[in-house]
Amino acid sequence: MALRVDRSPFHRLLGLELVRAEDGAVELRLPWRDELGRADDSDWYHGGVLSALIDIAGDYAVASRLGRAVPTIDLRVDYLRPARRGELRATARAVKVGRTVGVADVELRDAQGALVAIGRGAYGTAGRGDPEDARGPRSPGP
Amino acid sequence: MALRVDRSPFHRLLGLELVRAEDGAVELRLPWRDELGRADDSDWYHGGVLSALIDIAGDYAVASRLGRAVPTIDLRVDYLRPARRGELRATARAVKVGRTVGVADVELRDAQGALVAIGRGAYGTAGRGDPEDARGPRSPGP
Amino acid sequence: MALRVDRSPFHRLLGLELVRAEDGAVELRLPWRDELGRADDSDWYHGGVLSALIDIAGDYAVASRLGRAVPTIDLRVDYLRPARRGELRATARAVKVGRTVGVADVELRDAQGALVAIGRGAYGTAGRGDPEDARGPRSPGP
Amino acid sequence: MALRVDRSPFHRLLGLELVRAEDGAVELRLPWRDELGRADDSDWYHGGVLSALIDIAGDYAVASRLGRAVPTIDLRVDYLRPARRGELRATARAVKVGRTVGVADVELRDAQGALVAIGRGAYGTAGRGDPEDARGPRSPGP
Repeated sequence: MALRVDRSPFHRLLGLELVRAEDGAVELRLPWRDELGRADDSDWYHGGVLSALIDIAGDYAVASRLGRAVPTIDLRVDYLRPARRGELRATARAVKVGRTVGVADVELRDAQGALVAIGRGAYGTAGRGDPEDARGPRSPGP
Repeated sequence: MALRVDRSPFHRLLGLELVRAEDGAVELRLPWRDELGRADDSDWYHGGVLSALIDIAGDYAVASRLGRAVPTIDLRVDYLRPARRGELRATARAVKVGRTVGVADVELRDAQGALVAIGRGAYGTAGRGDPEDARGPRSPGP
Repeated sequence: MALRVDRSPFHRLLGLELVRAEDGAVELRLPWRDELGRADDSDWYHGGVLSALIDIAGDYAVASRLGRAVPTIDLRVDYLRPARRGELRATARAVKVGRTVGVADVELRDAQGALVAIGRGAYGTAGRGDPEDARGPRSPGP
Repeated sequence: MALRVDRSPFHRLLGLELVRAEDGAVELRLPWRDELGRADDSDWYHGGVLSALIDIAGDYAVASRLGRAVPTIDLRVDYLRPARRGELRATARAVKVGRTVGVADVELRDAQGALVAIGRGAYGTAGRGDPEDARGPRSPGP
């Protein structure tokens, strides 16, 4: 399966790039743009960019094992230090891919390789195609 | 204090509007734009938009009690159902504003008033001005 | 359905009592015992007692709508202030009971009525009877 | 510092044993007892036992770096599969020990070495000795 990130308008708005996604392991890349800043003339990313990146990376980690898009059930993000301007890298791995729930762990690093945030998400794997179950999906799919 | 949301480039990128923020209670408004969609030709918001909105609203709820910006320590978001195109409203209230930690609860509703996501965040209130502590801040401040 | 809390040895070890459980709303009661303390000669509950109480109350809130036991998928607990010796009351309500996931909110108050902790849990509602899905269950059922 | 786990009545009620705690890395051990079961005649641990174990291990990981007890700010637990009777091992490591907040990651494995639950906690490191800040502490200290 070739997961695509450029089919989502929001992914394009962020400028997200998929580095790799295979068998539960995902890497995403985000170049800095001034529009992603916390405040005018700030060198720091807005936290909302970090949480979005973490959710998307975790989602793709589970999706890459199933070969189809999955909805996010819930998301947890811990911000460890500010993320300075420069490229961000999110690496995610699926911890569990069960029949109804998948869990993924995500690490987010800045251009110097410092860990700026960590996250964990639960994703729905039942795949019933029910919009009611499609709570917070990300991945527009393969 | 008059909290401002338009000093953040990322807030402007989203198109976020502050309806009110006083004494621990905050309401934010987000009009739909195609760039916030999950996929091309989709009527649904991308989940990353929802989590950003929740984080920002919770942050402002604590900040509105302190009169200054606060960093996000950590965040949890539960996606209850898909958020269809139309205006989103986030309402947040500070549950606790302690000397080192504040906690806020957030509800996110779509244009029909349906609850689409709920969130809870912990925010740093020590205000030591240490960039190392400024983990995931949002609010560019008063 | 009459949910029972006394069929669980761990519930009996804690001394947990069910006050009511109907249609998504649950109240649990826990009397103080010295064995539940944080430290010898301490007047404070151990935090592990609070998180267990919150998980169980949220679980029963979802279970009371389904009429059967549900496994916990994940749990978040925010500790707001120390819980002093005396009776604890946990009140929970189901925020969502979907086809695969239920979400419950819980408040925990001390004998003076002060809010000491809040929590939110996601519970599996698919009910496939698969032990693999029975991740962190509590409720021994009706 | 020699962290002690046996000074807490609740730790003794569970039967918790400290294997090691040094420089941010902690291992705890819990032997099975029937009182820790989910239901009568059940071979499975009650989830409340798992969340308590995770909280305590994460707390000690941060405490082992500071040489003093720390309060829990918030706790997140993901239940991956049921934990069958037998010895449980919790391993924790401090991900960050900042001036006001520490973060720890915890893995919980059953006697067969299977990962049964993972958790992450935020702990208060400011150490102001204010009982109001002593929200959900565990470690009765060195």
